[in-house]
Amino acid sequence: MTPFIAEIIGTAILILLGGGVVANVVLNKTIGNNSGWIVITTGWALAVYVAVVIAGPYSGAHINPAVTVAVAIAGKFPWADVPMYILAQMIGAMIGASAVWLTYKNHFDETEDADSKKAVFCTAPAIRNTFSNFFSEMIGTFVLLFTIFYFSDASITETESVIGLGSLGALPVAFLVWSIGLSLGGTTGYAINPARDLGPRIMHAILPIKNKAKSDWSYAWIPVLGPLTGGALAAFFMLALS
Amino acid sequence: MTPFIAEIIGTAILILLGGGVVANVVLNKTIGNNSGWIVITTGWALAVYVAVVIAGPYSGAHINPAVTVAVAIAGKFPWADVPMYILAQMIGAMIGASAVWLTYKNHFDETEDADSKKAVFCTAPAIRNTFSNFFSEMIGTFVLLFTIFYFSDASITETESVIGLGSLGALPVAFLVWSIGLSLGGTTGYAINPARDLGPRIMHAILPIKNKAKSDWSYAWIPVLGPLTGGALAAFFMLALS
Amino acid sequence: MTPFIAEIIGTAILILLGGGVVANVVLNKTIGNNSGWIVITTGWALAVYVAVVIAGPYSGAHINPAVTVAVAIAGKFPWADVPMYILAQMIGAMIGASAVWLTYKNHFDETEDADSKKAVFCTAPAIRNTFSNFFSEMIGTFVLLFTIFYFSDASITETESVIGLGSLGALPVAFLVWSIGLSLGGTTGYAINPARDLGPRIMHAILPIKNKAKSDWSYAWIPVLGPLTGGALAAFFMLALS
Amino acid sequence: MTPFIAEIIGTAILILLGGGVVANVVLNKTIGNNSGWIVITTGWALAVYVAVVIAGPYSGAHINPAVTVAVAIAGKFPWADVPMYILAQMIGAMIGASAVWLTYKNHFDETEDADSKKAVFCTAPAIRNTFSNFFSEMIGTFVLLFTIFYFSDASITETESVIGLGSLGALPVAFLVWSIGLSLGGTTGYAINPARDLGPRIMHAILPIKNKAKSDWSYAWIPVLGPLTGGALAAFFMLALS
Repeated sequence: MTPFIAEIIGTAILILLGGGVVANVVLNKTIGNNSGWIVITTGWALAVYVAVVIAGPYSGAHINPAVTVAVAIAGKFPWADVPMYILAQMIGAMIGASAVWLTYKNHFDETEDADSKKAVFCTAPAIRNTFSNFFSEMIGTFVLLFTIFYFSDASITETESVIGLGSLGALPVAFLVWSIGLSLGGTTGYAINPARDLGPRIMHAILPIKNKAKSDWSYAWIPVLGPLTGGALAAFFMLALS
Repeated sequence: MTPFIAEIIGTAILILLGGGVVANVVLNKTIGNNSGWIVITTGWALAVYVAVVIAGPYSGAHINPAVTVAVAIAGKFPWADVPMYILAQMIGAMIGASAVWLTYKNHFDETEDADSKKAVFCTAPAIRNTFSNFFSEMIGTFVLLFTIFYFSDASITETESVIGLGSLGALPVAFLVWSIGLSLGGTTGYAINPARDLGPRIMHAILPIKNKAKSDWSYAWIPVLGPLTGGALAAFFMLALS
Repeated sequence: MTPFIAEIIGTAILILLGGGVVANVVLNKTIGNNSGWIVITTGWALAVYVAVVIAGPYSGAHINPAVTVAVAIAGKFPWADVPMYILAQMIGAMIGASAVWLTYKNHFDETEDADSKKAVFCTAPAIRNTFSNFFSEMIGTFVLLFTIFYFSDASITETESVIGLGSLGALPVAFLVWSIGLSLGGTTGYAINPARDLGPRIMHAILPIKNKAKSDWSYAWIPVLGPLTGGALAAFFMLALS
Repeated sequence: MTPFIAEIIGTAILILLGGGVVANVVLNKTIGNNSGWIVITTGWALAVYVAVVIAGPYSGAHINPAVTVAVAIAGKFPWADVPMYILAQMIGAMIGASAVWLTYKNHFDETEDADSKKAVFCTAPAIRNTFSNFFSEMIGTFVLLFTIFYFSDASITETESVIGLGSLGALPVAFLVWSIGLSLGGTTGYAINPARDLGPRIMHAILPIKNKAKSDWSYAWIPVLGPLTGGALAAFFMLALS
């Protein structure tokens, strides 16, 4: 697997499983309907786990442009590869979002609330406030990247953590994302990943979903620039401390 | 323990614990009554964990015909042993389902809803749709097998992952099944294993359960062929990538 | 720490944390009031984890007469030490139950339902039926011991599993108890440990709890003999297979 | 990173994530609103995990004055460094509490109940009783420190447990805190850490929170002296046993 393919597959799996758990909780007539925040956050954490298990050895499993840019700022990843990684992540996210829609198609059709259907694809703030929403996405991603920089194997990506302990090595990043979701996800739904939000938002606009909401493009820049800013700050902060 | 015995015991434990958690949640007057999707998915994930701990070193802990067929397609398991494995898995599943019934017998008697009683044994779709239901079982099993193929120790079954880290080595497959259940189980209840569904469905038809539902044979082929197809696709996809 | 002291301390910690989570969920005005089966089962699993971390290196962390007897049957533990271990486990369980009562004393005083107060100490069947209740305790403990016999480090107690992976080595038995609770605990509340039930039941009879229920001595033998029988069966079954 | 900086950052992260999960559950209009005790306890456990991952290699990740004092009593940490550690922990806790407030600012504004807003910062007893509340904080912290003393790598702080297993080495202390929260947190909300309670309580008094409650200073000494006493007892008990 090339890094390009690995990032596509890893991000597609991430969104399939991550969007899937949201679909299971918010769409009508699902078996996991209305099963709560513990289900959503555990589901997203494990989505990261599975994606990192698969893509880790091949691309470092960034599966997130905020990770790619931050590790480039930290001097641990070539800037020349950044566009290729981000492209792969966007393609993967769009594939994953489409797969969620196919899997839960009947439940989309049975769901009247357009915002619930959109929530399967992309985040929306609980209370709309540009500064606060940006800050939430920024601080969540700051914690994500800052902690990744200090994973004790001194790796700056999840990659190396996968190797050495078998597939258990991908657990720390999953626990980290679980933590961020439970603790910092209550405001904007913790995109903390531009590809995770923008890719599925584009698919939400494109796919022939019945009675769908508008795509809320005026908000779309926040889960893109907030995470990129937070990741960059984590890199600068780590560099300042070392 | 021979591989044949190990697959019987492993699958019996899987179904005892997996069917058990469903019984605990859906049958009347149980202590865990109506305790939600997090309980069911955690219970099934840990059922896989326990089964793999026991059977892993002896048979590779396939405990699932879709695993056995997929690893044979991948060229990592002899086709000649496939029928013996599948037979053992079916026997084990039927034993496990019977043990669940014995354990929760009084609660079956106290439950009026026939579909709830059947749900302890076998899956049923939330919304009946042949194509979508088949697709759900296929994609869930695709994720299961595709990820197993990429467990970082390069093992193609759960077997080797058990060795080296002690019984912690069986955790990755449990986390994987937890993820699939949370995220992709909302449509058809994630059989993702022909023996897990068909074996208990047969026992549901045979056992003298009071006021039981029909066995829904017209649906029974989907949680058999869907998982087999998904596992096979994962094997082909993995081979194409390597 | 001598093995005698280790079994006392380990079992006391087990009951303090295990009884504690029940108190938190069932007593009035607690912060975790009515927080469900996932809380109770996770709490008990982690209670085992903490107890095994502490006592494992010193006594093997049996903390359960059914474990002690089963490993003696299996020929891996001297029969001469069995009475001393069981005595320590009973003492520890009584200390732990007293500590729970002290910790939640105000909440006991605020709780009117006498059965809820008793539930903090000892188990009671959801549906009273001698054969079924005995069978439930037996099969739960069978799964406990049978799996312990197959922990992949070939240890026959939790002891060795603690060594080698640091305190992570105690996780498998915690996941195992989590699984048994979720899946097989719905009928009798999974004592699966004679000391866990009898020791606190004695303290329930002795302690000056306001408006307490009768101690239900006619049921008390089931969570003693059921687990001992299940553990013994697991030992015989393991010996027959090896 | 110096130990002083590491304790500041570790404690800030602890409180950001720990206070964050409380904010998510108790404040109005959050996405995780009213999602229950399992969310709060899992969130706090993972907050400890992330903090220990980051600070462990640099300061031992005490992030808790009760830990610092207890390991000093045990003779494993220089008394001369105790004031510096406690100062860092207090600074970190105040920074973390401020970050929670910034992150959830809009939700504070939308929440009328002043006690809920205070609960994001500091603990309050479910039933006010000086002796019982003190005992609860003492026994919870006793279990925390006593178990840390027996982590199988013989480390007396979380530090060494981080090294050797990569970032998985920080899991035992997270599971331990999860256990204490689930089982012993139902009475006083398990501060079990003077800095965790006092630092945010000071910020609650200082920050311009709309319609805030009084800071309950008459209670504030209990989550300070209870944990310090419990940790000291654990150290004495461990020394007596060794």
